[in-house]
Amino acid sequence: MSCFAIGVDLGGTNLRISAVDADGTLLEKVTTGTQILKGRDFVIDEMCGAIRTVSAKFQASLGLMGVGIGVPGIIDKRTGMIRESPNLPGWHNYPVKEEIERRLGAPVILENDANAAALGENWLGAARGMDDMCMITLGTGVGGGVVLRGEIWHGMTGMAGEFGHMTVDPNGPQCGCGNTGCVEQFASATAVLRMAREAVAGGRPTEISRLTEGPNVEFTAKAIFNLALEGDLAAKAIFQKVGWALGILMGDLVNAFNLHMYVIGGGVSNAWEAFAPTLFDEVRKRSMVYAATAPPSEAEPKGAAAKITAGPAPKLKQTIITRALLGSDAGLYGAARLPLLKTDAKARGMGQTA
Amino acid sequence: MSCFAIGVDLGGTNLRISAVDADGTLLEKVTTGTQILKGRDFVIDEMCGAIRTVSAKFQASLGLMGVGIGVPGIIDKRTGMIRESPNLPGWHNYPVKEEIERRLGAPVILENDANAAALGENWLGAARGMDDMCMITLGTGVGGGVVLRGEIWHGMTGMAGEFGHMTVDPNGPQCGCGNTGCVEQFASATAVLRMAREAVAGGRPTEISRLTEGPNVEFTAKAIFNLALEGDLAAKAIFQKVGWALGILMGDLVNAFNLHMYVIGGGVSNAWEAFAPTLFDEVRKRSMVYAATAPPSEAEPKGAAAKITAGPAPKLKQTIITRALLGSDAGLYGAARLPLLKTDAKARGMGQTA
Repeated sequence: MSCFAIGVDLGGTNLRISAVDADGTLLEKVTTGTQILKGRDFVIDEMCGAIRTVSAKFQASLGLMGVGIGVPGIIDKRTGMIRESPNLPGWHNYPVKEEIERRLGAPVILENDANAAALGENWLGAARGMDDMCMITLGTGVGGGVVLRGEIWHGMTGMAGEFGHMTVDPNGPQCGCGNTGCVEQFASATAVLRMAREAVAGGRPTEISRLTEGPNVEFTAKAIFNLALEGDLAAKAIFQKVGWALGILMGDLVNAFNLHMYVIGGGVSNAWEAFAPTLFDEVRKRSMVYAATAPPSEAEPKGAAAKITAGPAPKLKQTIITRALLGSDAGLYGAARLPLLKTDAKARGMGQTA
Repeated sequence: MSCFAIGVDLGGTNLRISAVDADGTLLEKVTTGTQILKGRDFVIDEMCGAIRTVSAKFQASLGLMGVGIGVPGIIDKRTGMIRESPNLPGWHNYPVKEEIERRLGAPVILENDANAAALGENWLGAARGMDDMCMITLGTGVGGGVVLRGEIWHGMTGMAGEFGHMTVDPNGPQCGCGNTGCVEQFASATAVLRMAREAVAGGRPTEISRLTEGPNVEFTAKAIFNLALEGDLAAKAIFQKVGWALGILMGDLVNAFNLHMYVIGGGVSNAWEAFAPTLFDEVRKRSMVYAATAPPSEAEPKGAAAKITAGPAPKLKQTIITRALLGSDAGLYGAARLPLLKTDAKARGMGQTA
């Protein structure tokens, strides 16, 4: 009997549930709002109900291998508890894995959401078929995940891949983490809005001020990206700053890890055209490892060169920095992959390292 | 029959050869000058002669498992050639491994010298018994090596661990690699001397100028460290800058890798007392992962707290940043470890990944 798994993306806003078969085919996807404010027990009730409904449709013909859940926080893999999650108050020190396993009667694997997204892009997205890759997710904050030899690299305490809080400008803006000049202060949606407000406050001639006025206020990173596309100089400068910070980060990651692929995803990655040229200029200058291994064609990643192409990536020993392919589904696929990977490992006679 | 291996450290100045048994006991160590200028073939002749002499003493009673050679350059593990080594001109595109194997009749493993040093500290030094660690070597330049799950992490093209060229100050001094503000521009012996010259040129009141005058000129990083110990403010400020740069680097590495231990070695690490306080201040501020996992006692690493203690490191899930223990022998032990590790892997039924 072939098999499937349930992938869950437990976000601060949406709860999304998918059924995915062993080949990566999406069988079903359900999205509901996460009613975090109603408390942990309510959310778990709702989640387990939705998982039961979705899996009931396929369990007659396919074997359920388990449930993977992507969570915005730090997971203690050993105890199956959430160690830290600002978006999920009240979930701390609660046996999440054990409780959901008890209710569903199926194995449950918890994973950090940025790690799950990296695994998703590694399984079915831009880094398909690559042993070693990492992913940077540019959202409200900046997250990251590392896959080494086909498995998520958790590090000693599950905190590896905190790319958003690596330093790119030691004297830069204060970050909530206590540091100054983190990547997140330049390359998150929040940072784009802060830089936009600074541009307006600085009195630079820009259409950005228009976004905050009138009846149709839409002060978003996307709206500022659209202004950049229209040629607004202040808006363009903001995304050049995004590219500058990402170029420094990429240079550091290439020099430290020397991986095959670095995937950039999350909402802000949609502004690729506006930040990628600066990113590639910086990383080429700042990493001789990158310069020695970059593909010849990325130099000016506009138009066709920046086009996303699906399918297995080239096996050449080149350092590829590229856009994510799966959008917000990366984490959903990655979560479903977790119980399937565990099965692969068992079949190969290896235990999964916790 | 128990066994031993030969470890070679092929430096730009010295050629050192050791015989080490499987338990890490140093059986013999020979040091000669590397007569690089006499050319590749001369050096290989000399090296093979010395290896034969050393191993002949033990081969009657112990089995020779092979020869590990640490080389200052980038190794192509697949072909056994040196891909890039500014200090070994003429060695490029030459079958080094094959040629030495042919002459000695024993398996040879080439390795980058900073990687070999990391493996040495992992085997017998500060990170003894740890699965996951990295080492930063502060010498004329700054090198690095990463050990994951007990094996050197080479990355895609053998260039992983280039910590010396990670960016700590995007607008900092120009580096030979093409970047500006690399770690190497702040934390190498070369950088210490540059900062010392800048302090003198800037007219700051300092004893440093004394080092460049008179009959007993000793303008070295060590002499400047001694001035810092004597309280010279300009000399102290130089090592604070070293600590500042290393603190930013450590924060980045802890956030990216989340390893158990980060070992700092190389000649400049002897100035630990002068740079470590600033290093720990910076890394604690700049990495919340470090702050969450640091041991309580490192906060002011002076006197007893900074004392080196040998033996296996604690197994607690703490992030330890510490001094190397093996000095310049780290690379020699690490090189000898390579053929022994390969044997371990074979005994476990696993091939070594190239």
